[in-house]
Amino acid sequence: THRATKKKKAGRGLEHPVFPSCNGAGQSSFSLRSHTCGELCSSHVDEEVTLCGWIQYLRQDLFVILRDFSGLVQILIPQDEVANAFLGLTVESVIMVKGRVRCRPEGQENKKMSTGEIEVCAESMEVLNTCRKLPFEIKEFVKKSEALRMQYRYLDLRSPRMQYNLRLRSQMVMKMREYLCNLHRFVDVETPTLFKRTPGGAKEFVVPSGDPGKFYSLPQSPQQFKQLLMVAGIDRYFQLARCYRDEGSKPDRQPEFTQVDIEISFVDQAGVMSLIEGLVHYSWPEDKGQINVPFPSMTYEEAIRDYGVDKPDTRFGMKLVDVTTAFQESQIEFIKDALLKPSGCIQAICVPEGTVRTESGDSHSYVPTPQLNLQRSQCSLISKQINLFKQLFLANAGDLIFITAGPRENVVCRPLLGKLRLQCVELLESYGVPVRDPSVFHFLWVVDFPLFLPKEDNPEMLEAAHHPFTAPVPEDAHLLYTQPRKVRGQHYDLVLNGCEVGGGSIRIHNASQQLYVLDTILKEDPSLLSHLLEALDSGAPPHGGIALGLDRLVSIIVGAPSIRDIIAFPKSFRGHDLMSRAPDFVSEEDLKPYHISVVWPSADIEGHFAPTPVRHT
Amino acid sequence: THRATKKKKAGRGLEHPVFPSCNGAGQSSFSLRSHTCGELCSSHVDEEVTLCGWIQYLRQDLFVILRDFSGLVQILIPQDEVANAFLGLTVESVIMVKGRVRCRPEGQENKKMSTGEIEVCAESMEVLNTCRKLPFEIKEFVKKSEALRMQYRYLDLRSPRMQYNLRLRSQMVMKMREYLCNLHRFVDVETPTLFKRTPGGAKEFVVPSGDPGKFYSLPQSPQQFKQLLMVAGIDRYFQLARCYRDEGSKPDRQPEFTQVDIEISFVDQAGVMSLIEGLVHYSWPEDKGQINVPFPSMTYEEAIRDYGVDKPDTRFGMKLVDVTTAFQESQIEFIKDALLKPSGCIQAICVPEGTVRTESGDSHSYVPTPQLNLQRSQCSLISKQINLFKQLFLANAGDLIFITAGPRENVVCRPLLGKLRLQCVELLESYGVPVRDPSVFHFLWVVDFPLFLPKEDNPEMLEAAHHPFTAPVPEDAHLLYTQPRKVRGQHYDLVLNGCEVGGGSIRIHNASQQLYVLDTILKEDPSLLSHLLEALDSGAPPHGGIALGLDRLVSIIVGAPSIRDIIAFPKSFRGHDLMSRAPDFVSEEDLKPYHISVVWPSADIEGHFAPTPVRHT
Repeated sequence: THRATKKKKAGRGLEHPVFPSCNGAGQSSFSLRSHTCGELCSSHVDEEVTLCGWIQYLRQDLFVILRDFSGLVQILIPQDEVANAFLGLTVESVIMVKGRVRCRPEGQENKKMSTGEIEVCAESMEVLNTCRKLPFEIKEFVKKSEALRMQYRYLDLRSPRMQYNLRLRSQMVMKMREYLCNLHRFVDVETPTLFKRTPGGAKEFVVPSGDPGKFYSLPQSPQQFKQLLMVAGIDRYFQLARCYRDEGSKPDRQPEFTQVDIEISFVDQAGVMSLIEGLVHYSWPEDKGQINVPFPSMTYEEAIRDYGVDKPDTRFGMKLVDVTTAFQESQIEFIKDALLKPSGCIQAICVPEGTVRTESGDSHSYVPTPQLNLQRSQCSLISKQINLFKQLFLANAGDLIFITAGPRENVVCRPLLGKLRLQCVELLESYGVPVRDPSVFHFLWVVDFPLFLPKEDNPEMLEAAHHPFTAPVPEDAHLLYTQPRKVRGQHYDLVLNGCEVGGGSIRIHNASQQLYVLDTILKEDPSLLSHLLEALDSGAPPHGGIALGLDRLVSIIVGAPSIRDIIAFPKSFRGHDLMSRAPDFVSEEDLKPYHISVVWPSADIEGHFAPTPVRHT
Repeated sequence: THRATKKKKAGRGLEHPVFPSCNGAGQSSFSLRSHTCGELCSSHVDEEVTLCGWIQYLRQDLFVILRDFSGLVQILIPQDEVANAFLGLTVESVIMVKGRVRCRPEGQENKKMSTGEIEVCAESMEVLNTCRKLPFEIKEFVKKSEALRMQYRYLDLRSPRMQYNLRLRSQMVMKMREYLCNLHRFVDVETPTLFKRTPGGAKEFVVPSGDPGKFYSLPQSPQQFKQLLMVAGIDRYFQLARCYRDEGSKPDRQPEFTQVDIEISFVDQAGVMSLIEGLVHYSWPEDKGQINVPFPSMTYEEAIRDYGVDKPDTRFGMKLVDVTTAFQESQIEFIKDALLKPSGCIQAICVPEGTVRTESGDSHSYVPTPQLNLQRSQCSLISKQINLFKQLFLANAGDLIFITAGPRENVVCRPLLGKLRLQCVELLESYGVPVRDPSVFHFLWVVDFPLFLPKEDNPEMLEAAHHPFTAPVPEDAHLLYTQPRKVRGQHYDLVLNGCEVGGGSIRIHNASQQLYVLDTILKEDPSLLSHLLEALDSGAPPHGGIALGLDRLVSIIVGAPSIRDIIAFPKSFRGHDLMSRAPDFVSEEDLKPYHISVVWPSADIEGHFAPTPVRHT
């Protein structure tokens, strides 16, 4: 057991490493500077250098700490007329310094600073710009509200952490491109973002056109285009595709996001999975350790069975265990009830060290339990199972065991334990119990998803589990026509540390099979996809692909709490740009060419309360 | 003189080279095939290969020509049971063939085919998909209307020409990224496309948001973001940026297009120009010959003086010449009139071989002349100038000389000759007179543009010649406050073969100078750009950048008649996607969350003629 005091989360990344590629040729090409601040070291001693950067500190007109993206360097201010130029300078002002590199006097080296062995003795200085306004200090330890960070994003991005994040993202994307384009001959093709609304595309932004009543739609993915490119014989396509989804104010979602979009012809599922393993391996940041390929693979059924979720976090155990047999004779009401039903089962997880003993000697749990229908009084009833649990889970005193009961196919029974498993770990970690190593990356493929799922609002009807273009697993294809609920799809999800970071499938390339799925199984109007059906009938090759969520992937790799930390100018969770104040009012005059007008919420009471739109002239 | 019969334009590119990078490792990785069709040659003889592709020809069940993106190969059909599989196959069906490579029998080699020395003897064949529907043959020489090509774009893209264009574009972009990211340490940063309407952004598409009356705007360029990234210390930014412009139905424009967007801190104009020269040189396609750097440079004044336009096509002469002195004594009415005015001048161009002598012995011109106010009767009046012209232009009998007269600053006098110069060349070329070598690429910088121009509708007012963020040339900066019309901007345009392919500038980095330009000179509301002004006051480094129009650049390089030929899925000139029929109607129901409704053109007569919107369910 552990002390029940809430500890601060492990503070990783307080001091950020300078981004590895910051030192390298070319970073000062075409520039007024000769060197970057951070690259200077004892091998530059006696060199004449020109540096440009921001004033990080200014000490008694004796020295300046100059900063650029690559790091910090100490500038010595000579005690002659050059010193006057430094008088009254504010921090974050931008200066250009010419001077000579020299070793710091013995004993004055700064081991904490990568340039701490040297300093630059200024010979001349020019103020390039003065910093007048500064809503907060550019220091990592200064706490800023998210809103303030967003409003002054151009200052927030000066932090070493944000510089690191954006540069790592750029570098990873470049490596991905090298892998796809140079090593495997993929073709980077741009597809339109002004497209047509897809059937049921409730989350698609609309863009009014000049044709009355007609709208473009900002697509959620280039799915149709990538498949059409395969029909077009492009053979191997990729794109870092901007995608759009109007999800209102879901936390940590962005109205626009980027996916690494890939499609390849004449391929099978194993081929796409190898391709992606190679891609991730090749583009993996050097400073994040090695990752091993191939990634382990798990069926959807196994994932639900063992983790209660289709994107398991495999960095820790606490798997779900079927303990039905142990409870066959149980007299506990809810368990008895469950087992009376045809496919009733009992599931359990064990949270090691999940209880604590307080100073007064009482034992209590980290996790609030009422949600589980399991009262303290019932606990004693399961005492006879305790020995079995000890065996099954290698459980010890102080461990916490959760039990659920219900029909096996039930969408509550296992998923509930799956959620609880994650909540327990988050609670344990928030109390300082280390469960998951933050430097560890667990990739996992989840495969053999069902092709169709019952519609939530009408379980008699089916909907595509992912999208209607996914091909069935070949040995299940005949079931399409007889038992579509039993068909597994050639779909694969890539999971990293319990987050879905990619998903793809082998697509249907046969027009009549695609028509059957759309028309007969999903009851969708096939005329809306007539161009795709025609294309499949015009010599479509077998093909498949995947889309990786770049924002999510990078945010996990850098350990960012939000995808907003790896996007240069993100929107707030309400979809607002707090810096420029987008979205904004547009005059009715400016809307005229698009044949639309605003329906103010108060319009039905004659518009008396409609705000006056700001007129842009 | 030449024959006046209209010749066919030089037919370049009827047979397209296979794209150079089609042969290379990796192009069959992760694939069902072992090789591509086009890579096979005599060094593969006796190898067992698996090929996947489309049936280009099928001859009497004796052989098949199989095609993939890399080229064609001949498959020999053995006269055994394998032959049955080929029976009844249609062209453009997709098959997989396993077989052995062998030399073609002597005398049967095909020198016109890159794989013409070998053939593949099929051992087994699998039909992967049957082609049922084919609105036109996939043959280069089959003429298709633009509308048909667009409707079946996935077939149109199978042509070697389109494959070449898209692959060259991908390759060039990859080389650009290597140059920027790997060689010069630029950071690839994605900026939002859901942004705020810019002041006067009449051509910006709007995107309704969930906030009543508030709209995002699809930006015409990431101009503000790239400058803010410099303030953020990103130092070197680039992005292949999707940009949007609603220009209705201007020919050869697209509502969305891509620019190579670049910004760099601590740089001057010469630095940006060198950077771009290096970029173009590095990414230049191998099969397009060498280009020389640095590119020549010309001031705006020189360009207007010598070519009558700010983006001169320097692939041919026919420059404008000031012939004012030769006409000082002229009695021709319009010339006399012009010279009476203070800055009256006479300009001329000479079109070599611009006239023809018909069989009947009459001389006449290629170019219709009435637009020039120059009647045949006046021609004789200038006979005394003819000797001078012969001297000035080295003119010969049969050459055609055009003359304009007007005030020197006039925006008609020189631009008219400039346009005529281009029209003459196009006419000459259409008649088969070679003037410009189509394999030649003339890059040119145009610099020293005026910073402001009089507004067309109100010449007392000034507008930014490019955009309000361009910095003045340092030696003109003081004129901002006294004679703003005389200020030159640190702006540079990159011109290729008479087309503007890029433009950029050193930006204003001083907040008070920026405020003065916006507020005092341009009379714009500075509050709309308050976030940018604040940013400039927070330690903004000196910076500058450029944007290259990627679509235009690539289309000139591949010699495409339209940018539609280097975009996978372009819109028609009316902004329609002819394949998916976007834009399309959206139900009022689907518009509700965005608080907008359609204003049908007939709405004022109570909407009787409003079409019923198609309901998407």
